[in-house]
Amino acid sequence: MKFTWINEPAKEISDSHLDNALNHQTRLTKPAGSLGRLEELSVRIAAMQATSRPTPDPMHISIFAGNHGVTQLGVSAYPKEVTGQMIKNFADGGAAINVIAKELNAKIEVICLGVVLPEGYIGFAVHNVTNISLPAETQNIANTPAMTIDQLALCLDTGRQHLHQAKLEGARLFIGGEMGIGNTTAAAAMAKALLQFEGKNLVGPGTGLNTKEVKKKNQIVNSAVKQYLSSREDDTPIEILRCLGGFEIAALTGSYISAAQCGIPILVDGFISSVAALTACHINQSISPWLIFGHQSTEPGHKHILEALDAKPILNLDMRLGEGSGAATSALLVRLACTLYNNMATFDSAGVTNKSGT
Amino acid sequence: MKFTWINEPAKEISDSHLDNALNHQTRLTKPAGSLGRLEELSVRIAAMQATSRPTPDPMHISIFAGNHGVTQLGVSAYPKEVTGQMIKNFADGGAAINVIAKELNAKIEVICLGVVLPEGYIGFAVHNVTNISLPAETQNIANTPAMTIDQLALCLDTGRQHLHQAKLEGARLFIGGEMGIGNTTAAAAMAKALLQFEGKNLVGPGTGLNTKEVKKKNQIVNSAVKQYLSSREDDTPIEILRCLGGFEIAALTGSYISAAQCGIPILVDGFISSVAALTACHINQSISPWLIFGHQSTEPGHKHILEALDAKPILNLDMRLGEGSGAATSALLVRLACTLYNNMATFDSAGVTNKSGT
Repeated sequence: MKFTWINEPAKEISDSHLDNALNHQTRLTKPAGSLGRLEELSVRIAAMQATSRPTPDPMHISIFAGNHGVTQLGVSAYPKEVTGQMIKNFADGGAAINVIAKELNAKIEVICLGVVLPEGYIGFAVHNVTNISLPAETQNIANTPAMTIDQLALCLDTGRQHLHQAKLEGARLFIGGEMGIGNTTAAAAMAKALLQFEGKNLVGPGTGLNTKEVKKKNQIVNSAVKQYLSSREDDTPIEILRCLGGFEIAALTGSYISAAQCGIPILVDGFISSVAALTACHINQSISPWLIFGHQSTEPGHKHILEALDAKPILNLDMRLGEGSGAATSALLVRLACTLYNNMATFDSAGVTNKSGT
Repeated sequence: MKFTWINEPAKEISDSHLDNALNHQTRLTKPAGSLGRLEELSVRIAAMQATSRPTPDPMHISIFAGNHGVTQLGVSAYPKEVTGQMIKNFADGGAAINVIAKELNAKIEVICLGVVLPEGYIGFAVHNVTNISLPAETQNIANTPAMTIDQLALCLDTGRQHLHQAKLEGARLFIGGEMGIGNTTAAAAMAKALLQFEGKNLVGPGTGLNTKEVKKKNQIVNSAVKQYLSSREDDTPIEILRCLGGFEIAALTGSYISAAQCGIPILVDGFISSVAALTACHINQSISPWLIFGHQSTEPGHKHILEALDAKPILNLDMRLGEGSGAATSALLVRLACTLYNNMATFDSAGVTNKSGT
């Protein structure tokens, strides 16, 4: 196999730093547990980073973008050209994720994996935009595997390479984002094949389909899954990713696996990203403790994916944009959690009496 | 009456700026509505501030602190001296709210209204701590009105004065916090009298009571409300605040009413603060549109207060600390919402095709 690295175990999380962090929280000037999930986040980051000074900084955001052949069947409210136009918007700093990254003081980069480019563009020779040589879109998953095994290997490895570069630059928290018109269709098909849910609604409006259009999208997802299953000799998460996924979803999956192997905490975004996280866990279960879920999307399938991952996201703000925007928004709270952990006074240092005078 | 100002109407919220803000959101490069509550927050702030450039900055945090006579009955997991000790901690910058205020770059001040001081202290002659001349604690609400009408007038006016000073300094968002051992007991009694809930659980563990202690606290709350109702000639929200409240809760109520009158958006914290907000609305219904609810506390009564106010808080992070900490945490998201509103590219400016090619 071209990518045996994906099966290598994730870094182990430090039990001793976990214990120390839990103990440190009891000494801070507040009733035990009263900072709720902010306490939990700081403790998890301390254990993952094996440190007594947890921090998400420097923070690294990689946005993986790709087009989907299935859009020829009309599964999105926006035309496929929007993927390339939005990459230009990312490069120019005008998208939501740019504004959030600036507020966070996070590094942001864009990786184009098979994109229908805006008229006049032959590629983005722009700072922080990387072009990967792939077709302008995946095959139509309704009747053909999305990509070849070589293309899958390239996408997974692209995720790993960008993660390794982020690590070299000192990243202490990783956020993966995605952009790809049609990718809720691919993600829904992947989730259906991975989880074999019956009767649970994994297909939603995406960027804004109406009820009739969602029904049609659901039929397309069902036929893609049926087509996939009917041609199976080896039904593995890797084959599901290859046949039903997308270039950007595969790169995201590779980046998550690599981050966990490198020991960098991962903040997961919404529906598409969570399906990539689910795929990463199905490929290699040791990834799971490295995932922190940033938000719950209004895309209806997301709650089922979160349940399957036993995940409780930080935020629930009715967001559904992708681009890593929900995860990046929640990063404000991850940072605050660490800052509170590092900078609050202790009962001893402040001369405050602890519970019931003890 | 000594405080007719509390009945003066809140500033009107600008319909034209609301419409303009809603329209502006549809032009930003994202599917309509996909930033969810971040869109809603920016639109509300734009309308409240009557501006096309909404911002929460400068942000002002006032923490009102007071002691409660009812603590002599053993209604808290912490001794009453902790109120004064925590004021010292606020002054020294070691409490959670200090760390959050620093992260926010917000101004923070503490107002002492009837506090049992730490040994050796005769008052805090410290920058950003104001001492108001009041007894060391309220009367025990289980058998006596918490305060006199003159004391109530002083507390309400203290809230107003500090809000006016914040306005003079240019504050564009107000966060009120509270600190007072015993104040969940007072707040529960007030809520019970204001809402006349039957069978709904307004009494909880506060800073950490066990089940048996919560039961005793519930009996004390019930007898305080019964005592209050049995002696009534005029059952008004003002009388409920005077008889069952606390100095810091009254000051918080005054600050909310004043902020709405001055046209400054209010970010409300947890259980105690929401009871102050409820009281403000019962006194003067025009305050209501100026309230933004920051978070849902785990204190069980909070969800009932939020329901009574028809409020949907921004965060639900299992916090229950007070000090304004939940509201201040949510202020990170209010700021981000405004930054996105002000700085994202539009479909036109970025050359991105809007929905379905239109």
